[in-house]
Amino acid sequence: MSIVVQNIERADASVADAFARFGVATVHEAQGRKGLMQPHVRPIYRRAHIAGTAVTVSVPPCDNWMLHVAVEQCQPGDILVVAPTSASDAGYFGELLASSLMARGVRGLIIDAGVRDVAELEVIGFPVWSKCISAQGTVKETLGSVNVPVVCAGQLVNPGDVIVADDDGVCVVTRAEAADVLAKSAAREDKEAAVRKRLQAGELGLDIYAMRDRLKAKGLAYIDAANRD
Amino acid sequence: MSIVVQNIERADASVADAFARFGVATVHEAQGRKGLMQPHVRPIYRRAHIAGTAVTVSVPPCDNWMLHVAVEQCQPGDILVVAPTSASDAGYFGELLASSLMARGVRGLIIDAGVRDVAELEVIGFPVWSKCISAQGTVKETLGSVNVPVVCAGQLVNPGDVIVADDDGVCVVTRAEAADVLAKSAAREDKEAAVRKRLQAGELGLDIYAMRDRLKAKGLAYIDAANRD
Amino acid sequence: MSIVVQNIERADASVADAFARFGVATVHEAQGRKGLMQPHVRPIYRRAHIAGTAVTVSVPPCDNWMLHVAVEQCQPGDILVVAPTSASDAGYFGELLASSLMARGVRGLIIDAGVRDVAELEVIGFPVWSKCISAQGTVKETLGSVNVPVVCAGQLVNPGDVIVADDDGVCVVTRAEAADVLAKSAAREDKEAAVRKRLQAGELGLDIYAMRDRLKAKGLAYIDAANRD
Amino acid sequence: MSIVVQNIERADASVADAFARFGVATVHEAQGRKGLMQPHVRPIYRRAHIAGTAVTVSVPPCDNWMLHVAVEQCQPGDILVVAPTSASDAGYFGELLASSLMARGVRGLIIDAGVRDVAELEVIGFPVWSKCISAQGTVKETLGSVNVPVVCAGQLVNPGDVIVADDDGVCVVTRAEAADVLAKSAAREDKEAAVRKRLQAGELGLDIYAMRDRLKAKGLAYIDAANRD
Amino acid sequence: MSIVVQNIERADASVADAFARFGVATVHEAQGRKGLMQPHVRPIYRRAHIAGTAVTVSVPPCDNWMLHVAVEQCQPGDILVVAPTSASDAGYFGELLASSLMARGVRGLIIDAGVRDVAELEVIGFPVWSKCISAQGTVKETLGSVNVPVVCAGQLVNPGDVIVADDDGVCVVTRAEAADVLAKSAAREDKEAAVRKRLQAGELGLDIYAMRDRLKAKGLAYIDAANRD
Amino acid sequence: MSIVVQNIERADASVADAFARFGVATVHEAQGRKGLMQPHVRPIYRRAHIAGTAVTVSVPPCDNWMLHVAVEQCQPGDILVVAPTSASDAGYFGELLASSLMARGVRGLIIDAGVRDVAELEVIGFPVWSKCISAQGTVKETLGSVNVPVVCAGQLVNPGDVIVADDDGVCVVTRAEAADVLAKSAAREDKEAAVRKRLQAGELGLDIYAMRDRLKAKGLAYIDAANRD
Repeated sequence: MSIVVQNIERADASVADAFARFGVATVHEAQGRKGLMQPHVRPIYRRAHIAGTAVTVSVPPCDNWMLHVAVEQCQPGDILVVAPTSASDAGYFGELLASSLMARGVRGLIIDAGVRDVAELEVIGFPVWSKCISAQGTVKETLGSVNVPVVCAGQLVNPGDVIVADDDGVCVVTRAEAADVLAKSAAREDKEAAVRKRLQAGELGLDIYAMRDRLKAKGLAYIDAANRD
Repeated sequence: MSIVVQNIERADASVADAFARFGVATVHEAQGRKGLMQPHVRPIYRRAHIAGTAVTVSVPPCDNWMLHVAVEQCQPGDILVVAPTSASDAGYFGELLASSLMARGVRGLIIDAGVRDVAELEVIGFPVWSKCISAQGTVKETLGSVNVPVVCAGQLVNPGDVIVADDDGVCVVTRAEAADVLAKSAAREDKEAAVRKRLQAGELGLDIYAMRDRLKAKGLAYIDAANRD
Repeated sequence: MSIVVQNIERADASVADAFARFGVATVHEAQGRKGLMQPHVRPIYRRAHIAGTAVTVSVPPCDNWMLHVAVEQCQPGDILVVAPTSASDAGYFGELLASSLMARGVRGLIIDAGVRDVAELEVIGFPVWSKCISAQGTVKETLGSVNVPVVCAGQLVNPGDVIVADDDGVCVVTRAEAADVLAKSAAREDKEAAVRKRLQAGELGLDIYAMRDRLKAKGLAYIDAANRD
Repeated sequence: MSIVVQNIERADASVADAFARFGVATVHEAQGRKGLMQPHVRPIYRRAHIAGTAVTVSVPPCDNWMLHVAVEQCQPGDILVVAPTSASDAGYFGELLASSLMARGVRGLIIDAGVRDVAELEVIGFPVWSKCISAQGTVKETLGSVNVPVVCAGQLVNPGDVIVADDDGVCVVTRAEAADVLAKSAAREDKEAAVRKRLQAGELGLDIYAMRDRLKAKGLAYIDAANRD
Repeated sequence: MSIVVQNIERADASVADAFARFGVATVHEAQGRKGLMQPHVRPIYRRAHIAGTAVTVSVPPCDNWMLHVAVEQCQPGDILVVAPTSASDAGYFGELLASSLMARGVRGLIIDAGVRDVAELEVIGFPVWSKCISAQGTVKETLGSVNVPVVCAGQLVNPGDVIVADDDGVCVVTRAEAADVLAKSAAREDKEAAVRKRLQAGELGLDIYAMRDRLKAKGLAYIDAANRD
Repeated sequence: MSIVVQNIERADASVADAFARFGVATVHEAQGRKGLMQPHVRPIYRRAHIAGTAVTVSVPPCDNWMLHVAVEQCQPGDILVVAPTSASDAGYFGELLASSLMARGVRGLIIDAGVRDVAELEVIGFPVWSKCISAQGTVKETLGSVNVPVVCAGQLVNPGDVIVADDDGVCVVTRAEAADVLAKSAAREDKEAAVRKRLQAGELGLDIYAMRDRLKAKGLAYIDAANRD
C-alpha cells in the first residue's frame, strides 16, 4: 500500500539545527558509532555541511513520481531522504526539483541512487549526497510512500529523525536521542580540542591516552631493525 | 582486421557545436531517454562542458598504440571516443597525447578505461571523461581500429556522431538525428525555464503537472501521522 | 606476532625528497612500469604532490590502535603507509592523528581503507590517499605491526621505501633502486619536454616515434569511408 | 549499549514453518514486492530452502564474539540473521558454530558478511546465505547486540520476523503480517498454476493477461522488418 | 518510439544450430577475439551449452512488460537477448515466462539484469545467462522495443544474429559472418586437437609454437636461483 | 627486466603435500590469521582441495605468453600462481595449457584474472581458483617474469612457498614457516575435534570457551523483551 503520512512529528528544530555545528564523524562517535550511512553515498560537491529533519521517501526503481508528492510534505529545516526499493543508478533528481524544495526551505537531499544537473545544483547551492551522478531519466508510473520508515544506504531512517551530512558522509540520529546526542557531541568536541593542542605540541597519543601498558600486556614487541634476520 | 576509416562523414559542424548550449540531461531527455553512457564514466575535473563529433577508436586492453593512429584522423571540433575490447583500467592517455590533440583542435576525450597526468590536463584545459584515473603504463604491440562503430560504456557510437559531455556524464546523438534532437533540446529548455519560475515561486509540481488525479486513481492514500498504529 | 621495528633504514633523504619534482606517471614509467598501487586509492583533495620515505603499518580490520604506535616511529620526511589485513572501509584516520603526524614532520598518509575529517584535513594541508572516505569509527583492541613489509593496494611496500603520490595515484620505489629511478625519471622528463614541443607544433606521434612502418607491417589498413558498404 | 534481548516474541511457529512451501519470489510478490534482501546475499550451496523465525545479531566488523552469545538465544525453528555495523568480508562463521546451532534446532544462517568451511557446511547440511565466502578469521573483542532490530542486506529485520530463503535469495516477512502473507502466497501459487498450464499449452501472456489493448494505447507499433530502411 | 519489428531475417538455422558443437572460447577466437559479452553475465546453472538466433528486447529498468511482447515474436531455435536501458538487478524473468518460451521452442535467455525461480528453471531445463539472481519483482508500465539493435553486456546484438553460450559466457556472431565463423571454428578445433595430443604427451608449448627465439629476441633472461642475491 | 628464475628452492615436498589434509581456514588460523588471498579468487568448481609448491608468474595485463614459459619451470607437486601487473579479467588460461601442466604433474592454478574452458577443466580434473571466468582471448607480445615474488590477490607469494586451496579460498604459507604451520594446523584440528563433540552434544561455546565473565566485564546486559518499551 502506498501512503503519504502527513503531520509527522519532527525532532525539535532548535536541536536539529544545532547539529550543523558538528561534523558527521563527531556525531557518529558521540552516539556510540551508529547511524552512519554506507560510504558510497557521497556529496556532489565539497564543503556542504547541513543538519535537519528527515522527510523520507520510498521510491520504486527508476521512477521519481513520489518526489513530487514528497515536496508538498516538506517544511523549512527538512532534509529529503530517498531510498529506492531496489538498486538503481538512475537520475531521480535535478535542478527543477531542487528549485521547488528550496522554495520550501528544504536544506538538501540524501538519495541512495543517482542525481543530475550537478553543476547547476552547485551554482544554486542545493547540496546532495548520492550514490552516483547520472543523467538517466526516470518515469512517473508507480507509487511509493512518503514519511514511512526507509532503509537508506544501510541505515534505518524514520520520518522526523535528524540527518547530519558533510564531506565525511551522512549520519542519522533518532528523534528520541537527538537532544542527548547533541550534548554528547559538544562534549566530545571539547575533549578533542584539548587533545588536539597537546598533539600539535608534539605529545604522543600513546602517552595522552596512556596506551603503553595495555599494548605491552597484549604482547607488542619492539625490535631494532638491525637485529632482524 | 584492423582498419583506419578515413574521411568519415561527420554531423554538421554548426549542429554539433550548438549542442554545447545544452546539458547532457537535457539532450538525453530530448531524444527520448537514450544515448547516455553508463555513469562510471566521469569527468577528471568539474565544469567542463563540450560538444563535438566523434572519432572512434577500438583499442586492445592496456595497449594505446591506436591512439597515436587516431590523432591523425582528427580535425577541429572532434571528440575522441575510445573503447577497449576488454575491460582495462590502465592509463591509456596523458598530457602528451592531449597536447597533440589540442594542436589539431580536438575538444576532449571520452574513454572507458584509465587516464593519467590529470593535474596537467586540467592546467592545459583538455577535458577527459574516463572510467578511472590510473598512471598504469600501456604497451604498443597490438592493432585496433579507428572510426569503426564501438560500444563505449554501454552505448553504441558511430564515427561522426555527436557527443555531448558535462558534469552529468556523456550522451551520444546519432548523426542522422542530430538536427532534430537539437531542436527538441531547445524546446525542452524553454519549457523548463517556464516551470522553473513557477517552482521557484512556490507552486508545486503536483499542480503544475496536474498529477493529483492520477495519483489518486492509482490509489495513493494520505494518512495523518497521529492516526498510525 | 606483533612487532614494532625501530631504527629502520630509510632511502636517502635527498633522493626521496627529489622525487617530488616528478609525477607518479613519470616515476612509474621510469622504473619499468612497476610499483603502482591499484587505482582505487585516491587523494582526498586535488593538487597534493608528495614524496618521502615509508613507515609501514599492518592493521587489523576496523582497528586503528597501531596508528598511534606508528606515530612514534615517524620522523620528518616520512609518509605513513597503512594496510589492513583484511578489507575494510572504516575511517581509521582523522584530523587528530594528522595533527600528531604533522607535529613530527610527516608528509602524508597512504591507506587502503577509509579516512574521515576530510574537510579539516584539506584545511590543515595534510594529504591522504585512501580507498574511501568514511566516518565509521574503529576500535583499539587488536595489535598489528609497524615497519614490517606490507601489501598496500596490490603493491609490496618495505619500510624505508620511497613513496611518490599525486593526483594520478601512488607509486612505490624500493630503497635499493631509488637513486637509479630518480635519474631515469629526470631523463624521461627531459625527453618528454622535447616531444611535447613537437606535438604542440602539430607534428604527429606517428612520425616522431616512427610508427608507420611497424603499423603497416602488422597489417593496419587505411580505408576510405566512402568505400565501406 | 550492548544488549541481549531474551524471550522475544516470535511469529507463530506453524505459520513460519508453512512458508517453506513457497519460494522467495512468491512470498516477495505476495506481500507487495517488499522485504527482499539485496541480491549480493547468496546461498553457499544450491537447493536449500528454509523458513523460520529470526534471531538477530548486530556484530562489529570482523568480530564474531556475539555469535556465541546469540546461540544461547536460539530455539528450534529459528534462523540466525547477522548484520555487521560496517562492511566486512571476514569469515564470521564456520562448521563449529553450525554444529552448535544444529544442536539447538536452528535451520540456517543469513549473514551480510563472509562465511567459511563451506564444503563442511554442505556435508552436514547447514545452509548459509552470505555476502561472500572467506576464511578470514575474526576476533572476539568488541560487544554487539542480540535480538535488536538490524538492517541486513538493505532490509530491516526485527527479532521474531519470518525469514524465507532459497536459491533466489532471502525475504523477510514481519511477524504482524506473517499469517496474511502466507495466505496470499498460497493464493498466488494457485493462480500461477493455472497460468502455467495455459502457457505450456502455447497460449501467450499477451492474451492471458489481456495486454494488447493497453500496449496499443501506450503507442506500441508493429513494423515489418522488410519495411525498415 | 517503441516498436516491435516482425519477420526479422535470421541467420541460417543450420548454421546457427551447428555452433552448438563449439565452445564460446573457440567461437570468440575464431572470429578474431570479438563478440564476447562482459564476464558478469553468468549461467544460472552449469553445463548448459546452446546456440541459436537472437530475438532482442530493449527493456526499461525494472519493467518486464516487453518480455511478454517478445515471446510472440519468437520461433523455434531462437534465444532471447534482453538489455535494460539503464542498469537494473531486478528479477525480470522467471519460470512462467520460461514455460511460455519453451512452448515456442526458444532455447534460452541472455539478460543483462536479474532472473528468479532459478531452482525451477534448472529443473525444467531452461538455461539463462544473467547479471544476477534476484527475486525482485518488476512492473508493467513502460514500453520498450523488440527486435531492434541492443547493447547487451557491452556487445552490440542485432536481431537474427547467432548467440553461443556455455559455461565460459556468451558470444555474438553477426548474421553476415556466421557461416564463415562456423568454418573457422571447426578449423580451430581441429588444430587444437592436434596440439592437445602433443601437450598431453609432454611436449612444451614453447616448442610446439616455436616461441623460444622470439622470447630471446625480446630479451627474456634465464637466471639460476642460486645466483640471485 | 624480464627473467625466468630456474632451480628455485621449494618447500619440502612431504611438508607441502601434508597440507592437503587441512582446510584453508585451519591453515590460515594456525599461522596467526595471515596469508589468505582476497575472497574474490574463487574455485571454478567445488570440492577441489589441493596443496603444493608455488611457481610464480608475473604477467602483463591480457597477455598470457609467460604462462607457456612458466610451464617448463614446473615439476610434479607444483601449483602455478599467476598475477597480472595491472587488473585484467581476460581469459589467460584454458584446457590446452591445463593439459600441458597436467603432463608435468602440476596440481592446479591460482590466478588473479580470468580463465576459460571451465567445463572442460572440470571434466579433466584440473582445478583453478580465479578472479573470474572469461573467454576473452589474450595476446603474446610482452614479456613478464617467472619465479619472482608476486602479489596475488593481496598476498605476497615467493616461489617455492606452499599454497593451500579449497572451497574457502587460497592461503599462502612461506617456505620458512611451512613445517611449523603444518604442526600447528594438526594441533588446531585436534583441538577443534574435541570442541565439536561438545557443541554437537549441546554444550554452548559461551561455556566451553568460558566467555561469560569477560562479556559481563565488558558490560553486556541481558534484558527481557517484555521489559522493552
